[in-house]
Amino acid sequence: MFERPVITAFRWVPDFAKGQVRDLRVRWALEEVGQPYDVRLVDGVTVKAAEHRRLQPFGQVPTYEEDGLSLCESGAILLHIARKWPGLLPADVQGRAHAEQWVFAAMTSVEPAIMDLALIDLFEADQPWSAARRPASLDRVRGRLQDLSNRLGDKLYLEGTFTAGDLMMTCALRGLGPSGLLDEYPNIAAYVARCEARPAFQRALAAQLADFDAEPVPA
Amino acid sequence: MFERPVITAFRWVPDFAKGQVRDLRVRWALEEVGQPYDVRLVDGVTVKAAEHRRLQPFGQVPTYEEDGLSLCESGAILLHIARKWPGLLPADVQGRAHAEQWVFAAMTSVEPAIMDLALIDLFEADQPWSAARRPASLDRVRGRLQDLSNRLGDKLYLEGTFTAGDLMMTCALRGLGPSGLLDEYPNIAAYVARCEARPAFQRALAAQLADFDAEPVPA
Repeated sequence: MFERPVITAFRWVPDFAKGQVRDLRVRWALEEVGQPYDVRLVDGVTVKAAEHRRLQPFGQVPTYEEDGLSLCESGAILLHIARKWPGLLPADVQGRAHAEQWVFAAMTSVEPAIMDLALIDLFEADQPWSAARRPASLDRVRGRLQDLSNRLGDKLYLEGTFTAGDLMMTCALRGLGPSGLLDEYPNIAAYVARCEARPAFQRALAAQLADFDAEPVPA
Repeated sequence: MFERPVITAFRWVPDFAKGQVRDLRVRWALEEVGQPYDVRLVDGVTVKAAEHRRLQPFGQVPTYEEDGLSLCESGAILLHIARKWPGLLPADVQGRAHAEQWVFAAMTSVEPAIMDLALIDLFEADQPWSAARRPASLDRVRGRLQDLSNRLGDKLYLEGTFTAGDLMMTCALRGLGPSGLLDEYPNIAAYVARCEARPAFQRALAAQLADFDAEPVPA
C-alpha cells in the first residue's frame, strides 16, 4: 500500500509570511492531483538541525518524503508530483516542456525581482538606503509584470489550461503581497484571482494557515 | 532527419559577463549529450524586439528551438535536453528527482544570494549604500556555501555521478567570479574546477567566447 507523502512546514511564522511559505506550493500540487499527505511541523531551531538538513541541506522548508524517496526544493517537488499523478502537466512533449518553462520563469525570472522588492519593504525598511534603492527595484518588478501581462493577454492560463507553471507563477506573484502592484495589470490580477479560486488552492491555503501556532515556541 | 537545435546568444557583452551568460548552460548541456547546435546571435535591441519576445517573453537569452518546439528559460531547456538525450539524468525515479532538486537548489537557493552580491559589486558599486549592504549579503552567500560544502563533503559530484544538477550548480557558483570566496571552501572550489575541466564545458565556454564581437553594435 502506498503511504501518504510527508511534507515539512513551519509551526509558526510572522504574519507577513502566512500564506507565503513554500510548503504552500507542495500542498497545492498535492491537492490538485488529489493525493492526501501528512505534515511534520518544524520550528526555527529544528529546521536548522542536522536531522532536518539531511533532507534539506540549506535548513529550509518544504521537504517531501514518500516510500524511500526524500526530496527538497519546492520546484523539484512540484515536478515530481506532476510526473507521478495526472493533472499538472500536459501529456505531450511540447506542452510539458512549456509547463516547466513557466515553473522556471516564475522562480528565476519573476520571483527574484519580487523578492528584492520584498526585501526592501519588509527587511530593510528601516535602513537608510531603503528609499533610495526602491525605485530601481520597483522598475524591475514592473518590467517583469508588463512582459508577463503582454504574454498572458486574454488567456485564462499561460498555456491555455492550468499547469504546474500556473501554480508556481501564482505563488511567485503572491509574493507581491498587499503592494497594490497587481492592480496595475488587470489581466494578471484576474489570472491570480482565477488560480487562487481553485478549490485545491483554497484547501492548501487553509491547511497551511491551520497548522500555524498563535505564538512561536519560546526560545 | 532531425535538424540541429538553434539557440540564441548575445553578439556582445561587457567583459564581466563573458563566460557567464546563460546560453553557456544550454551549450554545455548539448555538448555533454553530444548534440551539435546552431547559434543565432542577438543584440541589446533585437533581444527586446517582438520577434524574439515570441520565444522569450522577458527579452532574455537563451532560447531553444528544434523541430516545432520552442522553449526558453535555461533551467527548462536543460531539463528538456536531459530528458531527450542520455547523459545528464539518472534513469531511476529517485536519481532523476535528486538531479532536478540540485537544478532548483542552484537556481533558487544558491544563485539569488550570489546575484545579490554581484548586484552590489558590479551594478551598485558606486552607490552610497553599497558598502553598508555588502556585509549582510556576503553573510548570506557564505551561509549557502557552507551548507553546500557540508553536503558535498568529499564526493566528486552532488549525487555521486555528474548530472544536470552539477551543471547548473557549477554555473551558479561561477557567478561568484573573481571574488575569491570559493577559496574559503576548498571542496567546493575543487568541485567547480572538476566540473569546469570536463571537455564538454571547455567546448561550451570556448564557443560562447568565440561568438562575442570585440565591440558592441553601434547604437
